[in-house]
Amino acid sequence: MNVTKIALPQYSCSENRFENQDTAEAMVAEAARLGADLILLQELFDSLYFCSEMNQDHFSLAETAEGSTVSRFRKLAASLNVVLLLPFFEKKAPGLYFNSLAVIERDGTLAGLYRKMHIPDDPGFFEKYYFTPGDLGFRVFHTSAGKIGTLICWDQWFPEAARLTAMKGAELLVYPTAIGTIPEEGEVDKIRFRDAWRTIQRSHAIANGCYVASTNRIGNEGHNTFWGGSFVCGPFGEILAEAGEGQEIISAELNWSLIENQRQTWPFFRDRRVDAFGKLTERYG
Amino acid sequence: MNVTKIALPQYSCSENRFENQDTAEAMVAEAARLGADLILLQELFDSLYFCSEMNQDHFSLAETAEGSTVSRFRKLAASLNVVLLLPFFEKKAPGLYFNSLAVIERDGTLAGLYRKMHIPDDPGFFEKYYFTPGDLGFRVFHTSAGKIGTLICWDQWFPEAARLTAMKGAELLVYPTAIGTIPEEGEVDKIRFRDAWRTIQRSHAIANGCYVASTNRIGNEGHNTFWGGSFVCGPFGEILAEAGEGQEIISAELNWSLIENQRQTWPFFRDRRVDAFGKLTERYG
Repeated sequence: MNVTKIALPQYSCSENRFENQDTAEAMVAEAARLGADLILLQELFDSLYFCSEMNQDHFSLAETAEGSTVSRFRKLAASLNVVLLLPFFEKKAPGLYFNSLAVIERDGTLAGLYRKMHIPDDPGFFEKYYFTPGDLGFRVFHTSAGKIGTLICWDQWFPEAARLTAMKGAELLVYPTAIGTIPEEGEVDKIRFRDAWRTIQRSHAIANGCYVASTNRIGNEGHNTFWGGSFVCGPFGEILAEAGEGQEIISAELNWSLIENQRQTWPFFRDRRVDAFGKLTERYG
Repeated sequence: MNVTKIALPQYSCSENRFENQDTAEAMVAEAARLGADLILLQELFDSLYFCSEMNQDHFSLAETAEGSTVSRFRKLAASLNVVLLLPFFEKKAPGLYFNSLAVIERDGTLAGLYRKMHIPDDPGFFEKYYFTPGDLGFRVFHTSAGKIGTLICWDQWFPEAARLTAMKGAELLVYPTAIGTIPEEGEVDKIRFRDAWRTIQRSHAIANGCYVASTNRIGNEGHNTFWGGSFVCGPFGEILAEAGEGQEIISAELNWSLIENQRQTWPFFRDRRVDAFGKLTERYG
């Protein structure tokens, strides 16, 4: 298959996770009806962004990859014949939790997991309390809907993560996301932050000659207001589809046959000074 | 000093290198008169972009760092009391040439050299014929006008170069540049390429919480048309000053006291997964 149609459902969540799952399921079904082969849901797809506070109760939202939530969406993917990227709160063992993404093939098999490697911790985003940094490394999945490099939210600020994922063969980098502003931040901040967020992700497409897709949530959740703006861009960083701040499904066609030409004409992989990159494994200096 | 005013003179070059030096000198003097502390000239500042063809004659343009060209501009910097970043075609020995940048302090001393680490080679940009890849590594210069990380043109496409330079303490990354289109590329290509060029450089400011300044040339030189668009951006990637496609000097104030706050609120240096970055020294896989 040389072209994949990707869809990104963008929606808000409530306290009721089953209601959120129903929303997600309905939007995935609608995306499939519109011809999408590949569907990317938002980070922690079926709950409020609970990391806005430190509350032990929220650990009860976590499930294993064999739990009922992933199972429900594996069945959905199979019934719709789509590859589904499902970000979820993963419980590995009591006291060990990850911010994860399940890659589900169109026959409902679990192709594998990615566990968010970079974990933020800021006022309103207390993720280091909940999530252990990912222990599976950077990953690419050769699916029936393309070679998909899986990354999650905060990973988007780290060019190293994009590069290592692209070096494993990814032709699409995905970033399910939960990003927005807190009350101390005004409209000017939001415009500036959102443009920086969009710019850094577009840059990963440019640097690596690949597609990028990013799904963000919307809505007000207590102190956090999520800005939506889910988008798909091509290997020049050019925007192919972009959402506003409301509930919607955006989609774009990913033409895999363009990737090799792109990397021949902009041959960054040819020229990386790998002999001089050793200190990238250091903190500073 | 907590604020530096940087200026970027943007001009076209002719066949006559002394005329080009006169143009550069006049614009540097004008920038100083306007209050600039720090002035960044364009790549290969005093010649046509001779790499548009392979011609052995052009090696005669190269000079050592002790040659008359750098000496002339060291005297100029001292006379104007400015820090001057002078990109030039460096001859190290017969048969050994670099695409270099001289960092000149405001008293006219040569603070040091950077030699372009990543060398392009494309139709119209035959740089691998002329230049050996830089052998001095990534560099930062703690000057009287700020902590300046020196990079040149093609380096701009490599996030690794920006990161390693920032990790050495740079609060400003500079990219003297010669980029444009060839006749096979139309207006749509130009818009797309130029936006990608701008985006990737803005992303380095964002990822590293620093300023970025990029000076490009203008004008038609045989098959190459250079698109100007020199710019300075802040650590959100926000544009502080930007040139069009004509001869002009742009300037911006760099407030160094903002950098620490930026990196505290967007703490990317805190979270880099250096334990998982080892493969960045590999080509692929």
